[in-house]
Amino acid sequence: MLDYINRQAPTWLVQPEVLAGEEFQDCIILVFGKPRTAVFAHIDSIGFTVRYGRQLVRIGGPDTETGYRLVGEDSQGAIDCTLTVDDETGALGYEFSRDIERGTTLTFACDFRETETTVQSCYLDNRLGVWNALQLCETLQDGIVVFSCYEEHGGGTVKFLAKYIHERFAVRQALVCDITWVTEGVHAGQGCAISLRDSLIPRRSYVERIRQIAKKSGIPHQLEVEGSGGSDGKELQHGAQPWDWCFVGAPEDHVHTPHEQVHKADIDSMLRLYQVLMREL
Amino acid sequence: MLDYINRQAPTWLVQPEVLAGEEFQDCIILVFGKPRTAVFAHIDSIGFTVRYGRQLVRIGGPDTETGYRLVGEDSQGAIDCTLTVDDETGALGYEFSRDIERGTTLTFACDFRETETTVQSCYLDNRLGVWNALQLCETLQDGIVVFSCYEEHGGGTVKFLAKYIHERFAVRQALVCDITWVTEGVHAGQGCAISLRDSLIPRRSYVERIRQIAKKSGIPHQLEVEGSGGSDGKELQHGAQPWDWCFVGAPEDHVHTPHEQVHKADIDSMLRLYQVLMREL
Amino acid sequence: MLDYINRQAPTWLVQPEVLAGEEFQDCIILVFGKPRTAVFAHIDSIGFTVRYGRQLVRIGGPDTETGYRLVGEDSQGAIDCTLTVDDETGALGYEFSRDIERGTTLTFACDFRETETTVQSCYLDNRLGVWNALQLCETLQDGIVVFSCYEEHGGGTVKFLAKYIHERFAVRQALVCDITWVTEGVHAGQGCAISLRDSLIPRRSYVERIRQIAKKSGIPHQLEVEGSGGSDGKELQHGAQPWDWCFVGAPEDHVHTPHEQVHKADIDSMLRLYQVLMREL
Repeated sequence: MLDYINRQAPTWLVQPEVLAGEEFQDCIILVFGKPRTAVFAHIDSIGFTVRYGRQLVRIGGPDTETGYRLVGEDSQGAIDCTLTVDDETGALGYEFSRDIERGTTLTFACDFRETETTVQSCYLDNRLGVWNALQLCETLQDGIVVFSCYEEHGGGTVKFLAKYIHERFAVRQALVCDITWVTEGVHAGQGCAISLRDSLIPRRSYVERIRQIAKKSGIPHQLEVEGSGGSDGKELQHGAQPWDWCFVGAPEDHVHTPHEQVHKADIDSMLRLYQVLMREL
Repeated sequence: MLDYINRQAPTWLVQPEVLAGEEFQDCIILVFGKPRTAVFAHIDSIGFTVRYGRQLVRIGGPDTETGYRLVGEDSQGAIDCTLTVDDETGALGYEFSRDIERGTTLTFACDFRETETTVQSCYLDNRLGVWNALQLCETLQDGIVVFSCYEEHGGGTVKFLAKYIHERFAVRQALVCDITWVTEGVHAGQGCAISLRDSLIPRRSYVERIRQIAKKSGIPHQLEVEGSGGSDGKELQHGAQPWDWCFVGAPEDHVHTPHEQVHKADIDSMLRLYQVLMREL
Repeated sequence: MLDYINRQAPTWLVQPEVLAGEEFQDCIILVFGKPRTAVFAHIDSIGFTVRYGRQLVRIGGPDTETGYRLVGEDSQGAIDCTLTVDDETGALGYEFSRDIERGTTLTFACDFRETETTVQSCYLDNRLGVWNALQLCETLQDGIVVFSCYEEHGGGTVKFLAKYIHERFAVRQALVCDITWVTEGVHAGQGCAISLRDSLIPRRSYVERIRQIAKKSGIPHQLEVEGSGGSDGKELQHGAQPWDWCFVGAPEDHVHTPHEQVHKADIDSMLRLYQVLMREL
C-alpha cells in the first residue's frame, strides 16, 4: 500500500501528508489540504486460523462450505488446501497433504471474474472500498483518507486513529468506505447504498445532510435500513470523540464467500458520490 | 430542552454554565458551582425504524405486541399506525393506509394516565429521569447534570461527555439517573432503588458511601441486585477515565411498553435522595 | 498488595515508582527504570452476588456445581454456605442456616493442595499471574508491572491504566500475565503458553517477535490457538492507544472451579519467559 501511495501520489492533484509507522500499527492516514471529513476504508480481510488436529477457527465471519479452496504459507512452504465443514457439529477443518503449523492464517484462494456489468472475487469487501478510496485520492483537495485494520475481527485500530485525527485536525465527520449487502431493499445495479442504520444508528442530522447532497447530485443511490451488521462506524460511535459517521458503499451479493459480486454501475456511483460528498460536507 | 433550561434557569438557586452545540452532538451539560459529582440522565427513547416491505427493526429493546399504536412522520405527512408481530417468526411490521418511507422512526403513541398514587405512560424511562434531573437543578449548588443520548441503543455519547468532564473539571463520581424494574426484590412504592449491580458491577467502596448517605438520610429506598441490564454506567465503566458510578432510580412496572408505570412515592424519594447525595458525596 | 510491595521492594534489584490511590481506583502500577513493556496481571476473581430469595448471580464466569462451598461476610457475620444449581432451570442459589443480605459477595472456599508436580486451588487464575508478576519484580530493571481489576467481569480499569501509561511513558508493548486452559493442543507440564489468538487476534509482527525470543531462549513453551476466551488484552485492543499485546501464561486444568490445577514446570517456565521477554522486547 505504502509503495503504491508513494508511487502514485505525484500524479494526484494535491500531495497528502502520509502518516504511517509504529504509532499507527499497520494503518495509514493520508491528509489532503484542510480536511473537514475523513474516509475510513479497512484493509483487513476475513479468513481462518489453523488450530490443532486439523481444526480451523474463523477470522471475522467467513461463509463456510466444504470445498472452498484456502491458501496460505507456513515455515514448510506454500499451502493450497480445502475447507471442510462437519455436517453434524459444524466444526471447521482442512484437507491437505500434510499438517499445517498452528497459528497459520488461511484465506480464500482468489478467482477474479469479470463480465460486462460485474466483478466477482473474494474480498471485494473491502478491496473495492480501498480501491474507491485510492481513486478518490487522485482529485481530493481537502480531506483525510484512512486505511484501517481489524474491521472484520473485533476492531481495534479506528479508536486510536479517530482520536489522533480529532485531536490534531479537529475533524469529526466520517464516511465509512466499505461494501454492504444486496437485500430485498438494496439491489445490484441501482447505485451505491447510503446506510440509514445497521446494528447501530448514526446521528440523524448528519445522515440527512448526506442524503440531501446525494439527492441534489443526481448520482444514483439507494437507502439501506438494517437491524444487524456493523462497520468501522461502530468504533467511531463508541470512541471518546464526538464523531459523526455514515456508511456509504456499493452492495455485494454472496457476502463473505469466495464469490463476492458487485455491479460496476454501483462502483461507479460510489466513487462519484464520494467525490461530491468530500467537496460538500 | 435548551429552551426549557434557558427559560427556567433564572429561577434556579445557582446559574449553571450551559454546554451544548456540535462538539456535544445532541447532548447538554450543565455545570453548577464547584462540581464533585455528575448526574447522567439519558434523553433518547426506544422505538422502531421502518425497513422495506412494511418491516420494522427495533431501536433499543421495545416490548412488542400486535396492536401497539405507533406514531411518526415522513415526507408524506403524519403517521399513526399499528404494530404487528408475526406469530411464528416474531417478525415486526406495521398496518397503515400507505407505505411508510424507509428510515422513518416510529415511537409509541403517548397515553398519559395518572392516579392518586401512580403515573403511567410510555417513555417514563427516561422522561422521569430527565424530570428528576431538571427538578434537582432548581436547588443544586455544586454538581454537573448531563443529558445524554444513545443509552437505549448501543451507547456512544457518554464516552466523550465523560472524557470532557473528567479532563476539564476533574470530576469522576457519577450517579446514573434512570428508571429501573419492579421485581421480586424491588417493589413499587417502597422507595427509589440503589442498584448494587446489573450486568456490570460498580466499585464497592463508592456504592457503600452512597448506601451510608441514603441510610443516614432516612429517605425510603431499596437495594437492587440484578445479573442483567445496563445503563449509562456501562460507558463510564468502559471509558478511559477512572469514573465511579452508581445507578439510583425509581422502579417501573411494564418496562419498555406503552404502559410504563411508576409509583409517585418512588419519584418523590428519588428526587430527595439525589438532593442529599449531591450535597454529601 | 501495597503492604507486600512496600515490604518487599527494598530487596528488589531496582526500586519502582509506586502509583496507587483514587485516580487508579483499586489498581496498582509499578514503574521500573526506563520501561519499554508493561505486564498486566489482574487481581480480581470470579464469584457470586447474593440476590433476593436465596438466589445468586454470577461474577464473571464461575463453574457451577451443586455442593461447591462458598464463603463471604455480611453485617450479621461470617458465611460458609453451599452452592445449589437447579437441575431444570440452572438457577443458582445457596443453602445456609439464614438468609444472606442482598449484594453480599461470595467466593469459592480455598482448599490449597500441592503435590510434587502441581498446585491446586481456586483462583490460581489469576493468583499465579500476580505471583509471577511479583516474582518478576525482584530482578526487573526496565518495565512496568500493572495490577488491574474487573478482568473477570466486563473490564473497566485497563482502559484508563493503558491511557495513563501510554501518555506518561510512551509505552505500548504489553504482556498479559494470566492463566489459560489445558486443551488438546496445550498440555500441562510442557511449558508456559504463548497465545497466538483467543477471541481476539494480537498483531502478528509483535507476536512473532515474542515467538523468536522464546525460541532463542530455549525455555519450554507451547503455542496456543483459540477461537474464544478473552483477557486484559481485549481492553488494550479496544483502547484509543496503539498497544501491542500478547497473552503469555501457564495453562490450568479445571478452569474456574474450586479445583484449578497448574503444573509446577509451567509456572517455572512462565517466570523465566517473562524475565527474558522483559529484557529483550
